[in-house]
Amino acid sequence: MRVMGVDPGLTRCGLGVVDGSTGRPLHMAAVGVLRTPAEDETAARLVLIERGIEEWLDTYRPDAVAVERVFSQHNIRTVMGTAQASAVAMLCAARRGLPVALHTPSEVKAAVTGSGRADKAQVGAMVTRLLRLDAPPRPADAADALALAICHIWRAPAHDRLSRARAAAYPGSGAPRPKGTIRS
Amino acid sequence: MRVMGVDPGLTRCGLGVVDGSTGRPLHMAAVGVLRTPAEDETAARLVLIERGIEEWLDTYRPDAVAVERVFSQHNIRTVMGTAQASAVAMLCAARRGLPVALHTPSEVKAAVTGSGRADKAQVGAMVTRLLRLDAPPRPADAADALALAICHIWRAPAHDRLSRARAAAYPGSGAPRPKGTIRS
Repeated sequence: MRVMGVDPGLTRCGLGVVDGSTGRPLHMAAVGVLRTPAEDETAARLVLIERGIEEWLDTYRPDAVAVERVFSQHNIRTVMGTAQASAVAMLCAARRGLPVALHTPSEVKAAVTGSGRADKAQVGAMVTRLLRLDAPPRPADAADALALAICHIWRAPAHDRLSRARAAAYPGSGAPRPKGTIRS
Repeated sequence: MRVMGVDPGLTRCGLGVVDGSTGRPLHMAAVGVLRTPAEDETAARLVLIERGIEEWLDTYRPDAVAVERVFSQHNIRTVMGTAQASAVAMLCAARRGLPVALHTPSEVKAAVTGSGRADKAQVGAMVTRLLRLDAPPRPADAADALALAICHIWRAPAHDRLSRARAAAYPGSGAPRPKGTIRS
């Protein structure tokens, strides 16, 4: 399976595409970072991120998209931008019918290093080793996006079982329709 | 000018369209709420919100979109959903080239009631009076969306002067382009 990992952010949005399956060697298809100018308005920056992610989805055609789950324990301004960029990534994927998975930073660290409290350098080192790269991808957001994709490839079997169980428990929720009222 | 106000949320996203200009009577063109099922995954809910907002923009063709600026002083789960829904609203508007303005809750309250600390009932009462409605729009998210649109109509002249000053100060930032790197 091919997974695109997204480490969301307005200033730097890390993207990484990895091919692989549980117990097989992993292969990096692409890695990069989308950047948007800090002096632009948020709405314009979100449009740039949408355009960039759409280009990546068109080019690499992943089977699933893994996005970092946003927490708000950090700086408040950063968290808002991260939440907004992650919304665009989820939207782009779900609009195409691609499965979207959210993984927490500690799930990702635990998946690639064995410890949920590993630091950036350790994650970068393991991503380099697992993908047999010459050097850790820079910036860290790019390495994190690859780590997210790897985490998803390794967790996907369990995740799929959960999704199937949830679909069985809530049968009509698979095909949602907008409920809205318009009054003129 | 016609302004669409968006009170963003995943569970309930308030939408209100108001026609008017400073010093002239206001007219409500539409009001409503988009709802998405709480049991659906966030990505699917964002797709429903995008679809709903696109329908409203197609139907009512506003000149500008005013979105509530999200703060994170509230419940953390709610704030994330609000930030994500607001990202979709900003994206839909900016993608069409519509100006997007963000107003804080206290700016909106101050605009329609004279006090930045007014409660929901007071905002609802003033929206009802200013738009000459028979009763306050329900739920409160719908009334808040109308209040946002009114706030924007009344603040727009000052807002435009600011935008022009900013454009003069940062000349190149008007036509942003995505900066990205792809490495295969």
